[in-house]
Amino acid sequence: MQIINSPVEMQQAALALRRQGRTIGLVPTMGFLHAGHLSLVEIARRESDAVVLSIFVNPRQFGPHEDLAKYPRDLERDSALCRRNGVDYIFNPPPGAMYPGYAPDRSESRSSAAASPAGYGVFLDENDISKRLCGASRPGHFSGVLTVVAKLFNIVLPDAAVFGQKDAQQAALIERMVADLNCPVKIIRAPIVREKDGLAMSSRNVYLSAAERADALCLSRALKLARRLYRAGERDCGAIMRAMAALVGKVESARIDYIEIVGAHDFKPVRDAGPGAIVAMLAVRIGNTRLIDNLPLPDDRLSNLPEE
Amino acid sequence: MQIINSPVEMQQAALALRRQGRTIGLVPTMGFLHAGHLSLVEIARRESDAVVLSIFVNPRQFGPHEDLAKYPRDLERDSALCRRNGVDYIFNPPPGAMYPGYAPDRSESRSSAAASPAGYGVFLDENDISKRLCGASRPGHFSGVLTVVAKLFNIVLPDAAVFGQKDAQQAALIERMVADLNCPVKIIRAPIVREKDGLAMSSRNVYLSAAERADALCLSRALKLARRLYRAGERDCGAIMRAMAALVGKVESARIDYIEIVGAHDFKPVRDAGPGAIVAMLAVRIGNTRLIDNLPLPDDRLSNLPEE
Repeated sequence: MQIINSPVEMQQAALALRRQGRTIGLVPTMGFLHAGHLSLVEIARRESDAVVLSIFVNPRQFGPHEDLAKYPRDLERDSALCRRNGVDYIFNPPPGAMYPGYAPDRSESRSSAAASPAGYGVFLDENDISKRLCGASRPGHFSGVLTVVAKLFNIVLPDAAVFGQKDAQQAALIERMVADLNCPVKIIRAPIVREKDGLAMSSRNVYLSAAERADALCLSRALKLARRLYRAGERDCGAIMRAMAALVGKVESARIDYIEIVGAHDFKPVRDAGPGAIVAMLAVRIGNTRLIDNLPLPDDRLSNLPEE
Repeated sequence: MQIINSPVEMQQAALALRRQGRTIGLVPTMGFLHAGHLSLVEIARRESDAVVLSIFVNPRQFGPHEDLAKYPRDLERDSALCRRNGVDYIFNPPPGAMYPGYAPDRSESRSSAAASPAGYGVFLDENDISKRLCGASRPGHFSGVLTVVAKLFNIVLPDAAVFGQKDAQQAALIERMVADLNCPVKIIRAPIVREKDGLAMSSRNVYLSAAERADALCLSRALKLARRLYRAGERDCGAIMRAMAALVGKVESARIDYIEIVGAHDFKPVRDAGPGAIVAMLAVRIGNTRLIDNLPLPDDRLSNLPEE
């Protein structure tokens, strides 16, 4: 396994693989790997000859008051996990190599509307999916996500890239970018990986105290409740959302960021959960930690939500 | 020579060329080819094994009151020229294949801030170079240019792409996109090709009446004057710009859109034409036809401006 820090070197390695006729699978991460990430690696391995796992805590997708500085990092542990799980290349660039002229104090205050710092200037944006839900709570977040993923695609030149369903809106947005910009990359969505009790795995779970860890179960419980109601025939999304909110509302440390039921493709709010594919989405702050989770319906397989 | 209309087919042809180890040169055009375009083809042929010339009158880079509908088109003539000049593939997609859901009436009113039409949603934008000069006169224009060029790069997968110096701001912006988004494409700038009397070649020159054709010489004459002053030691950009404006102002059919002297890399206004590389840029309306031209200094080779 090779660790590459330079975008130019990574691109040259990718071009060399391509010339040898080998296919490349990309797993983009922000590091601090858990079993969820390793499930993406497993899929990338099945799909391609060489697996590149990128570790980049992308400053462009963090808002000014978010957890960029304290986001958990452990390259040594990540490297060991990658080595054991068949990753061929870790791509781990410093922020200044991805965004020339990058300075932490300036970039953190970037919104998609603000003038760009000197040295870096081109951004991707989207008006339809990215302005709702997490995009509404985190202005500029998805512009940062699209921009870094477009860069990673150009640097790593993957045949396939694997994204987790946990970030359902991100996955949908990237599928849209790939369709709209004709990226020559196959996007694979991987099911959510959960702790035994149902909590969706996330690098941010390390922020939780023991008490908060227990409270954090309200996300998956709210989704189980939504599924129970849906299976019992409830199709009024307002009623389902109110029941979810009532459940979360009983947890003292929980503050709801959003609870919404949206169309699975356009992420627009749905009133009547008719025959179409929908997703129940929620973002909840447990203390200072913002967690997200979701449940696609009627086919809930990608959610991996335990049966009760 | 093959004419391909479908983005998917074009991408498959490009992937096949890549698998054969053949390099691809791209010449992006809006068709109605002239000697300027053919000079780009010549460079692409020297640079690569296979030459793809795209013909696409990109609706996203036209404003609501611009000449999208009447922009000159002649695919038959273009094909004959391409065949004679060693083009291997013409890529000529319909607008609906590039922008799913495209409807002429809606797309013409798109600005980069407006909500996107259903079916297409991802755009590239830039804050530093693209908002000045032509970007100020034509809001949304360069977002449309960057978006379509990013799409063409993903569809045609070129090793090299050739852009003309006539659109100097566009070329600089694309060089910036390639650097910022790590596009695996070498950008080559080709010198301006001019009529014998100095008029820069442009597909829009066909709009000019005989009288306007004569008046249109004021652009290259203003640049010649700028060069004369610069060579005589003038370094006050204000003085040079005023002299250019006075020359253009004497032509009755001419309305100045902008006359500016800017840094060759950042396109920011320059007051003092010191030792650095600068570009004298102008956009002038002759009757209803908007023409542009430019002169890099001190090295003026890319401008091909005749000596007096």
